[in-house]
Amino acid sequence: MEADILITDTLLLPDPGQDTFIPSGCVAICGATITYAGPMENYNGPRAKQTIDGRGLLTMPGLINLHGHAPMTLFRGLADDLELTDWLENHIFPAEAKHVNTEMAYWCSTLAAAEMILSGTTTTADGYFFETEVARAFADAGLRAVAAQGIIDFPAPGVEAPEKNIAAAAAFLDRWQGKNPLIRPALFSHSPYSCSNETLLKAKQLARERGVKLFIHVAETKHEISMIREPLGPTPVQHLHGLGILDADTICVHCVWTDARDMDILSGQGSPVVICPQSNLKLASGMANLPLMLEKGVRVGLGTDGCASNNGLDMFREMDICAKIQKLKTLDPVATPANKVLDLATTKGALISGFPGHSATLAPGKPADLIMLDLVQPHLTPLYTADLLVYAASGADVRTVIINGRIILEQGRLLSINIDETLEQVRTMACAVLQ
Amino acid sequence: MEADILITDTLLLPDPGQDTFIPSGCVAICGATITYAGPMENYNGPRAKQTIDGRGLLTMPGLINLHGHAPMTLFRGLADDLELTDWLENHIFPAEAKHVNTEMAYWCSTLAAAEMILSGTTTTADGYFFETEVARAFADAGLRAVAAQGIIDFPAPGVEAPEKNIAAAAAFLDRWQGKNPLIRPALFSHSPYSCSNETLLKAKQLARERGVKLFIHVAETKHEISMIREPLGPTPVQHLHGLGILDADTICVHCVWTDARDMDILSGQGSPVVICPQSNLKLASGMANLPLMLEKGVRVGLGTDGCASNNGLDMFREMDICAKIQKLKTLDPVATPANKVLDLATTKGALISGFPGHSATLAPGKPADLIMLDLVQPHLTPLYTADLLVYAASGADVRTVIINGRIILEQGRLLSINIDETLEQVRTMACAVLQ
Repeated sequence: MEADILITDTLLLPDPGQDTFIPSGCVAICGATITYAGPMENYNGPRAKQTIDGRGLLTMPGLINLHGHAPMTLFRGLADDLELTDWLENHIFPAEAKHVNTEMAYWCSTLAAAEMILSGTTTTADGYFFETEVARAFADAGLRAVAAQGIIDFPAPGVEAPEKNIAAAAAFLDRWQGKNPLIRPALFSHSPYSCSNETLLKAKQLARERGVKLFIHVAETKHEISMIREPLGPTPVQHLHGLGILDADTICVHCVWTDARDMDILSGQGSPVVICPQSNLKLASGMANLPLMLEKGVRVGLGTDGCASNNGLDMFREMDICAKIQKLKTLDPVATPANKVLDLATTKGALISGFPGHSATLAPGKPADLIMLDLVQPHLTPLYTADLLVYAASGADVRTVIINGRIILEQGRLLSINIDETLEQVRTMACAVLQ
Repeated sequence: MEADILITDTLLLPDPGQDTFIPSGCVAICGATITYAGPMENYNGPRAKQTIDGRGLLTMPGLINLHGHAPMTLFRGLADDLELTDWLENHIFPAEAKHVNTEMAYWCSTLAAAEMILSGTTTTADGYFFETEVARAFADAGLRAVAAQGIIDFPAPGVEAPEKNIAAAAAFLDRWQGKNPLIRPALFSHSPYSCSNETLLKAKQLARERGVKLFIHVAETKHEISMIREPLGPTPVQHLHGLGILDADTICVHCVWTDARDMDILSGQGSPVVICPQSNLKLASGMANLPLMLEKGVRVGLGTDGCASNNGLDMFREMDICAKIQKLKTLDPVATPANKVLDLATTKGALISGFPGHSATLAPGKPADLIMLDLVQPHLTPLYTADLLVYAASGADVRTVIINGRIILEQGRLLSINIDETLEQVRTMACAVLQ
């Protein structure tokens, strides 16, 4: 039997959480699966239909971006450095009301997919409205994705009547469950303050019936705490726990304003947390206490958030800032070392994403999701340890991306996306936004 | 008379601190100087020897990186996430003692120059030992630089006997003053805790006699405060002020641990401050209070610091983190807006660097230091305001760099540096470091 793809003579980092390089490594791929990953000299497998020369390149698992709102690429940089209420009410909500439609959702998600693939993300989790268009864009792009249909108790794009939000979400699951191995549909109930208890319970019930993940923004801002918490009343995490909503398939996004007791609950329930350091900084929401979360045994992943608040989808930059800012609160340089963050953005993230067998490691039997970075560059020289990937690399170093055994990016060229058409479509929509 | 270079049909950002784009702009360069920068349709000047097609590209002034230790690229990522004393005493100092020599200083500074040019820096300020090799590397690379010879009361690379540190610095000035329009020599007395008062006074006297800048690390860590400050005694800034050292030509680097009174002194003396947000975060030194500095009228510039502590020299990334982290302390999203940071990294920085007429704006009569970024990329689409340069762009977007009228980087290709040889030299040295 022939292999489909053989990567030769590459610097191999099979498990980024472990800082162990294989200097002259080789990866063999058959179909969607890795059949070998190890030293070149030990490879005894078959020749391949296609060989990729890995000299000068680092080969590692693709990154896992666990939170985004892909269509919001249209609003990238539309309104920066504003007070949150001003930002939302005077800029983002009006722009969404006017400009979000199926066509916008498809093209702007295609742009997001292109940006993620170009910067080394191979799996993403997304939550928005018109999510079927988002899922379609990701499917066309060949990106592995958990796509979650938004649920909110306000009129929303595509769901004008809030009382139909659960039915719309169910229809979305009908459309996507079991249809594409790379797309797993899910639900995204916006937040505890924008969804009634009844809506939250119905959303979780639907998620449980269908065996899908439920995403929810939790404890993002200090203001949210005051909205939910009466004096001595529950925190947002306690509130959700009280409703019986927290379990291993409920993914709590942000959790900036969580205390030790909240973390004990999240850890006890096995509910994953996705932190979005750049978005939280830029919107002045604050900074999640990552060291305490990890100490408490909370499952943590990393996300960029949408382009209206970040304003980019480069997970390398997200890792860098994540590792650096955690040293600020305690003035402890040992806090949140780079390899811990690399682990969140790969293995830990992959486990949270919930694709069977997916652990963002390069090993036989694993899905063939990998990226190759150009090491022959000044800012990546010298290379002593994998920390360099966090503190010096950027998404722009990525040259080749393989997802589920398919080459999606080849020497910097997107094979699955018509990028000229995508850029043109989004530019035209942006002109309309400015008018 | 012919122009030398004409950039046509470009998106022009003549003054990054002001968010005003010229959609179809044009820049004309004669010799080292800009002769026109404005709308294409208003250009009535001569044809040019060389025309650069600016379509799809943003043309803006080059960035000003006001603090670095160029040879330390060799130690990039050698020892990350360690406690400061452990980092310095067990890793950096021994590595410096063993590996810093003239050859190392030249090649590793060439690597730094390449990294800076590739990421859009056109002016840098550097302080290290064997600084004549650093200056030589910058001169060969065509980079505009203030190069400052290190002064410290310990045996240092190239200055084994500390009592000769001032004489060595004077010899360095002799070698470089008036020799190259792009290289301005200066002095770098390491810090108030590593230089005696006598050394500091002699260094400042020498700087005054020669009319050069004096750089000094000030108030970088909390520990430094305790070293200098007796109970109720002076802060590092007060200490230097008491010595009569602070004036408009003394540039204080870091200033993380400065209070309102310190800032009043710095502002009153006109002493510029250079902040290095990423280095300060990564080494867990803390975060300078930039909003208060600006409110107090302190002149502030931005720097990356050396590669042992950052670990890269990309000023776009530095700007991004600078703008984001300042919103953390006050939870105020309006704090330190992007255009303010862009202004620090261009105009404010250029004025501090002290090259005559240099203000990092594109206008007739100004030195022709400019960069061109590729806008036809997903992460830079759409482009609503110049904030995108801070929150989404990266050094990797830079395609063309002109310094003093000379094309140094052309469509991603370094014209002034043999990059293959440079990478090879540094890789060989890095192998020796690992042994």
